[in-house]
Amino acid sequence: MKKPRLILACLLVCGAVSAWAEDGYRLWLRYDRIDGQSNRNEYRRPTQALILATPTGEESAIIKSARSEVARGLDKMLGRKQTKVHVVTHAPDPALGEDGYALENVTVDGEAAVRVRANSDAGVLYGVFEVLRRVQMRESLEELDVVSVPKIDRRLLNHWDDLNGFVERGYAGFSLWRWYELPEILDPRYTDYARAVASLGLNGTVVTSVNANALILTPDYLKKVAALADVFRAWGIRTYLTARYSAPIEIGGLETADPFDPAVQAWWDAKIDEIYEHIPDFGGFVVKANSEGQPGPHDYGRDHAVGANLLAEPLAKNGRDGIVMWRAFVYDFEDDTDRVKQAYNQFVPLDGKFADNVLVQIKNGPLDFMPREAFSPLFGATPQTKQMVELQITQEYLGASLELAYLGTMWEEVLQQDTFVQGEGSTIGTITDGTLHGHELSAIAGVANTGTDRNWTGHVMAQANWYAFGRLAWDHELGAREIAIEWAQLTFDANAKATDKIVNLLMSSRETVVNYSMPLGLHHIMERGHHYGPGPWVEGGRPDWTSPYYHQADTTGIGADRVASGSNAIEQYAPELQALWGNLETVPDELLLWFHHLPWDYEMRSGRTLWNELAFRYQQGVDEVRAMRETWTSLRGDIDAERWDHVRQRLAVQEAAAIEWRDACLLYFQQFSKRPLPDGVELPAHDLQHYIDVNRRYFPGHPGDN
Amino acid sequence: MKKPRLILACLLVCGAVSAWAEDGYRLWLRYDRIDGQSNRNEYRRPTQALILATPTGEESAIIKSARSEVARGLDKMLGRKQTKVHVVTHAPDPALGEDGYALENVTVDGEAAVRVRANSDAGVLYGVFEVLRRVQMRESLEELDVVSVPKIDRRLLNHWDDLNGFVERGYAGFSLWRWYELPEILDPRYTDYARAVASLGLNGTVVTSVNANALILTPDYLKKVAALADVFRAWGIRTYLTARYSAPIEIGGLETADPFDPAVQAWWDAKIDEIYEHIPDFGGFVVKANSEGQPGPHDYGRDHAVGANLLAEPLAKNGRDGIVMWRAFVYDFEDDTDRVKQAYNQFVPLDGKFADNVLVQIKNGPLDFMPREAFSPLFGATPQTKQMVELQITQEYLGASLELAYLGTMWEEVLQQDTFVQGEGSTIGTITDGTLHGHELSAIAGVANTGTDRNWTGHVMAQANWYAFGRLAWDHELGAREIAIEWAQLTFDANAKATDKIVNLLMSSRETVVNYSMPLGLHHIMERGHHYGPGPWVEGGRPDWTSPYYHQADTTGIGADRVASGSNAIEQYAPELQALWGNLETVPDELLLWFHHLPWDYEMRSGRTLWNELAFRYQQGVDEVRAMRETWTSLRGDIDAERWDHVRQRLAVQEAAAIEWRDACLLYFQQFSKRPLPDGVELPAHDLQHYIDVNRRYFPGHPGDN
Repeated sequence: MKKPRLILACLLVCGAVSAWAEDGYRLWLRYDRIDGQSNRNEYRRPTQALILATPTGEESAIIKSARSEVARGLDKMLGRKQTKVHVVTHAPDPALGEDGYALENVTVDGEAAVRVRANSDAGVLYGVFEVLRRVQMRESLEELDVVSVPKIDRRLLNHWDDLNGFVERGYAGFSLWRWYELPEILDPRYTDYARAVASLGLNGTVVTSVNANALILTPDYLKKVAALADVFRAWGIRTYLTARYSAPIEIGGLETADPFDPAVQAWWDAKIDEIYEHIPDFGGFVVKANSEGQPGPHDYGRDHAVGANLLAEPLAKNGRDGIVMWRAFVYDFEDDTDRVKQAYNQFVPLDGKFADNVLVQIKNGPLDFMPREAFSPLFGATPQTKQMVELQITQEYLGASLELAYLGTMWEEVLQQDTFVQGEGSTIGTITDGTLHGHELSAIAGVANTGTDRNWTGHVMAQANWYAFGRLAWDHELGAREIAIEWAQLTFDANAKATDKIVNLLMSSRETVVNYSMPLGLHHIMERGHHYGPGPWVEGGRPDWTSPYYHQADTTGIGADRVASGSNAIEQYAPELQALWGNLETVPDELLLWFHHLPWDYEMRSGRTLWNELAFRYQQGVDEVRAMRETWTSLRGDIDAERWDHVRQRLAVQEAAAIEWRDACLLYFQQFSKRPLPDGVELPAHDLQHYIDVNRRYFPGHPGDN
Repeated sequence: MKKPRLILACLLVCGAVSAWAEDGYRLWLRYDRIDGQSNRNEYRRPTQALILATPTGEESAIIKSARSEVARGLDKMLGRKQTKVHVVTHAPDPALGEDGYALENVTVDGEAAVRVRANSDAGVLYGVFEVLRRVQMRESLEELDVVSVPKIDRRLLNHWDDLNGFVERGYAGFSLWRWYELPEILDPRYTDYARAVASLGLNGTVVTSVNANALILTPDYLKKVAALADVFRAWGIRTYLTARYSAPIEIGGLETADPFDPAVQAWWDAKIDEIYEHIPDFGGFVVKANSEGQPGPHDYGRDHAVGANLLAEPLAKNGRDGIVMWRAFVYDFEDDTDRVKQAYNQFVPLDGKFADNVLVQIKNGPLDFMPREAFSPLFGATPQTKQMVELQITQEYLGASLELAYLGTMWEEVLQQDTFVQGEGSTIGTITDGTLHGHELSAIAGVANTGTDRNWTGHVMAQANWYAFGRLAWDHELGAREIAIEWAQLTFDANAKATDKIVNLLMSSRETVVNYSMPLGLHHIMERGHHYGPGPWVEGGRPDWTSPYYHQADTTGIGADRVASGSNAIEQYAPELQALWGNLETVPDELLLWFHHLPWDYEMRSGRTLWNELAFRYQQGVDEVRAMRETWTSLRGDIDAERWDHVRQRLAVQEAAAIEWRDACLLYFQQFSKRPLPDGVELPAHDLQHYIDVNRRYFPGHPGDN
């Protein structure tokens, strides 16, 4: 008779406590207790014990982490005091690769157990996270037949964090790394960060910005990095740094950073030795060289390969497996070639010249993380050179952390994009995972969207992008929808119908952003500096940082002419794609103005004129955000009030942003089209000057006041 | 039979949940459920209902806040579903002033109730917080006989937050105000901030830095401020801004900001009207003018009174009660008078010229928030001018958020300091509360130590400083120890013995910092720029920003000569203090080198030479930090592991900092004293150059990289 009352008391107390906690901090690792004894028993039964089977059977730091996660997760979900965890030895299994794992049901001492088998402690940890994920998603742990092996070796986050705590293109507060407290003080959040990273199977993190600061390589800072690396290592995460090419001058006291200078070579050799003393499993460097003002080998008349190999050699010394990720995001102020052609032009001649432990790190598009671009033609164009894709998790051009844009769909599009460089099936995924050209070493990078905000990513729904990147880094063939379903189930305690709505919201969101900001292949028409909001009028300074350079709107029409009549950037693609995209009959609407300059009255497949279609797409974007708001309103009560309200507020901002984009862009382009807005497109509330005058000062993620 | 098992289950779950929450976020408003039914009954019995008695009996926003806090606090502590709260009307009671309250036991409908009676809704809210505080501290709610009335009208936090999110002299992350999200998005943390502020009886907040940015006065930003003000208002908190004196030029398009210019007067008049349209209860301005490069009336040959009155007049228009807090922190580069004399010299001649709604805001010391200074002689020196004290909660010169320094003892020393300006008992407290010179309007300001860090203040123990400031703002006669006891009880669930240890740790901590950094009246010998760590060698640039300007060390001795033989700054004090401090027989050791330059062999009261005493004090500081560490170690298990470890890590840093201070300063001064370190003082591990070379780049709270 007392039972119900006591349960009620418990619920009240737990409810009150968890009211403090529904702030998104727990990400997809919520581990809420499963409702109902019989539901809990369903998972208690097959998990009388967990068997962690590794080649060594040792109680390493990573195994300890796995144990702690079992306590934090399984015990809490099952309301159990302490799950038995046995660490055992087993023979290596080539089928599991380095980081893969198998989950199996076994019986030990008459008790049902789940065995997590792997060739490395990290593999075991990933397997444990999968067990926990299955329980969280209420998937069965009986009749397990799971083998999961990552397709890519180095699965990295790139943090664009400066040493003063500022995050470049960061919209979730400031840097997680509290450099002035390190190495003495370890923020417990470092561990929670590492847990989240490891839970996705990511195994590396580059803690400093590509716009590198040589100070990170000084002894004082290396001690700080080592303290972070010690935390991360226990979760299978290796630490990487960015290398400022001019470091030998700035902190080494040399007069040059010329890679052919023996003193420079000796300096890097000694410096890298020093790094390994601090961080024995140091992962290597990301380098942004001769790009946007950064120093590099061109300063001394040397090419990228020479530049990269300078660092690569000591990273491979003494059995080390450090790597150089040399960014292909390069374009010269002096070079008047179409900006999107320049990386290809610089790197293709260098094929075969890079050291074995160098990967060329290529942004998915040849321009810069636009809401949609054609893929970078450099992918697959240097078969003797290892290539990796760089995706941007932080939403520099997709609404910062104010707007909902699930990027899983964009990345699915990118990773499954066929380059045709070795015939059909030459996807960017198979280039990144090394299989297309038979490279042993492979890597993938995502520019992190994390910061000090309590919910890690600013917008709670942006957690889905961190999650999706991690899952795709493990397996680039996963679908964006299945990842969205997983994330939504793990993140919200919603019923199936509500989960469905959330997933549908995610799935259409990126296309919605494309529609209200840069539809039909338009690109780079955002505001200067902070890159938030419309700026098709942005002019002045170097041409390739203006908007007209890209939209080319004039009284005759709009769009970048990248076929033979123009820059002919299309020639950098495989013939199959040249045929597809070069032909107005076959080019998809989504890339129309990326490749073609067309008259305002050009007749679209829809039957509308180009002008009317453009207006229609902008309106559609606004309409879609309104529908998103309605969907969200309908979810009230289906998820916790705190996160519901968090998203509600931001969707209101997103509608206003969509309207601003639509009105600003249509008014601007109307100057050239000289045509009225078609029926069904709402009239702007202001004149063009109003939108031009919008001045967002101190927008985050960009230094300075605009 | 089932009962124990269920309780256990509940404990397990609650424990697991609260493991996420012991991060300091809840401050002194923890509201943990009281252990034991009988203990809970002790508070359930007298609180069958709460009666909120106000003159209007209306359900205002503030009353709703009070209700929500009862639900959040009382209900949770008592494990009760919903305490009955009745709002009733009662006649005003002059004894309670504007914000005071009375707590009384009453019987309503045969039920025991606690009545909170006040003349304003804010008073009721403060009373509710006192009820909650008493329950948290396990004080009885029976036989209540409580009347509490604040001594000061405007009890303010000053935030030194810039619009880009940076907090000047902020060591707890970045600004709480997310300007780019406002006004559309309201971070739930704004409400938690307001709750904490209101719980202390503070009733105003200046949201922007004294180094003001005119942008805050533009229409876009006023909308943002208004959104914050709306949140704060429901917690009895009025919003204030900082006014940049040159705003009429920068955002008004005028060519001058001369206070005698009619266009300037009209601009401020209209601007202040506009502010009140957005924020009907706008509190007024803090102004830093003609100080450290800020613009001000001197730029036009006008004095501070003219400058302040320009803003004061429109703030008092139409029955408004806005105020100007004009800072006395002024010193001129061109003026070679001892810096500590300059504010007095500038303001005393202006006495009687300030408008009624102007207060001169004076830092406690005449220099700048040193670990210890003589008080500012300006206090009480302008009897016709309202004066208020500005205290610094953020630890600019007391170890940032890396070191434990409870400032309650410092502020007690300051507020109870006798100025003797109207004979004995002319304390700074009575000047600040207006009673000494019969001023109706009174105010006090504390420079906030809050930021985005999860625990609000960076160092968990620095929460005690926020708490102490709030309590002293309410009643400047409270003792530092009683405040420390309250805070420790509210903040940690420790037994009496552990609480005692924590309180003792707090109580001695400030003197410890004085000992290891600036003992015997030394001041301003910290590192340049970020102000963290020792810098007695800092020279170059304007003299009053160097260290030798203050310590005056040479082969003959050390100390600032501020008696007749020197700058004679002492003449600005009352004769009683001139006699006390000017005489080597009576001046306390603590202010010795503040007022006197003395030979190295000067014999101290201890019998030691000055040099040996100096060395001894530095060593004592180190020894005291070591004792703090021992005390803390002994607390393991008495408080939660998360906060215990948080403090443990920082105390280790503090010991290293104390050693650095000792060694750096003694090696530096030894160049002049040319004497050996006495027995008992540890030898430095490095030479002087080592300490000079320490270069803390990117230390928080200071722009730039050092």
